[in-house]
Amino acid sequence: MIEVIALDGDDTLWHSEQLFVDTQAAFRDLVAPYVEVDDADLDAVLVEVERRNLPTFGYGVKAFTLSLVETAIEVTRGQIPAAHLQSVLELGKVLMDHPVQLLDGVAEVVDELTDRYRVMVITKGDLLHQESKVARSGLDELLWQVDIVSEKDEATYRRILQRAGIDPTTFVMVGNSVRSDVLPVLALGGRAVHVPYHVTWELELVDPDPAHDFPVLGSIRELPACIEALDGRPREAPGA
Amino acid sequence: MIEVIALDGDDTLWHSEQLFVDTQAAFRDLVAPYVEVDDADLDAVLVEVERRNLPTFGYGVKAFTLSLVETAIEVTRGQIPAAHLQSVLELGKVLMDHPVQLLDGVAEVVDELTDRYRVMVITKGDLLHQESKVARSGLDELLWQVDIVSEKDEATYRRILQRAGIDPTTFVMVGNSVRSDVLPVLALGGRAVHVPYHVTWELELVDPDPAHDFPVLGSIRELPACIEALDGRPREAPGA
Repeated sequence: MIEVIALDGDDTLWHSEQLFVDTQAAFRDLVAPYVEVDDADLDAVLVEVERRNLPTFGYGVKAFTLSLVETAIEVTRGQIPAAHLQSVLELGKVLMDHPVQLLDGVAEVVDELTDRYRVMVITKGDLLHQESKVARSGLDELLWQVDIVSEKDEATYRRILQRAGIDPTTFVMVGNSVRSDVLPVLALGGRAVHVPYHVTWELELVDPDPAHDFPVLGSIRELPACIEALDGRPREAPGA
Repeated sequence: MIEVIALDGDDTLWHSEQLFVDTQAAFRDLVAPYVEVDDADLDAVLVEVERRNLPTFGYGVKAFTLSLVETAIEVTRGQIPAAHLQSVLELGKVLMDHPVQLLDGVAEVVDELTDRYRVMVITKGDLLHQESKVARSGLDELLWQVDIVSEKDEATYRRILQRAGIDPTTFVMVGNSVRSDVLPVLALGGRAVHVPYHVTWELELVDPDPAHDFPVLGSIRELPACIEALDGRPREAPGA
């Protein structure tokens, strides 16, 4: 029987990766006058810089902004003027302060789920930024609790479940990342639902593994019916 | 009766602000060839940049590093070469990866306190960096729980206490910041102990307020006796 439903934040509840993609386009325009590499090569350098900075800086917009500055210096061999690097910093600030845009159907679905389940958010990234997005989402009053973590692996989920006294067999994680939202929860004996976003950050990609079987939804609007099927409890008749 | 003792991290358990002070000295050397302001003015610009970035970037080394880059561009009116800004980024990485150096007496005192109380850490800053410092401190096996937060105000402490089921009257917070560790906890009806560090970040300073009365220790080594006095319980005789 399902008791707790945990939702990922970025690209599950609200748009995120598309904002990074748009920021990366603006970044390319800023460095373009000083480089001779094409857009694809520039994007590849950025991903490599992000990958090597990940153990030190972790996830989130501040880490991304630091990697943007470093990439700009690296691809221009130090030829980019400092004033342009200030514009790169400003891209990061715009991303931090960007309005929260819920995905279609999120508000109604969260509201519906809270009638029958404890609903929580488990999200990774900058602590302040994620807190701010939860607060600005308008969902916080509906949520049982919010956990912001530095990595979404088995150890992290185990710690969250233990601390909150949640039996993994009563727990469902819902999110857009197979790597972060699905596989570690299945490994703990919980259940997981994948709701893909239209674009996935390269460092979140995993190779498909046919050994794992989990629901994949076209939209979060399909989540209540999916949870009902997982739960096995009949939905109460209206007015009953 | 005291049941839970919460310890701040930076400058209470391990050295931190001194590392920022040292980094700032290295930063001054990097920008010195391109500016005509003196050291005090340069420091003042950095504090102002940090203050204005605080609502967007929050606390921690990544926010500090972004503010260093911005300050370098601002004080040199964009004249600093990009390669020097890469050196500024490296200062931030060194700070992130710096070994954790416990303050004198911390290991023994935490060990002693855990015999009688639940001991936790409440610290603010970069999520990944603070987690990493707790792990590298060697204290994590002794700790009941660790909370890393974006701001240490009344609302944050209230949320932590409620979630963990802690009665404020049984709770003592111990830290080096009157603003973050002492005043909000006293306001909630908890108790607090101030253990000053030899240097305090300008944005943590508060004006003294004679309305508040709390113990001020010369060293964390004095904490067990202080807690005993607050608690009113006699210490068990050795071997009893």
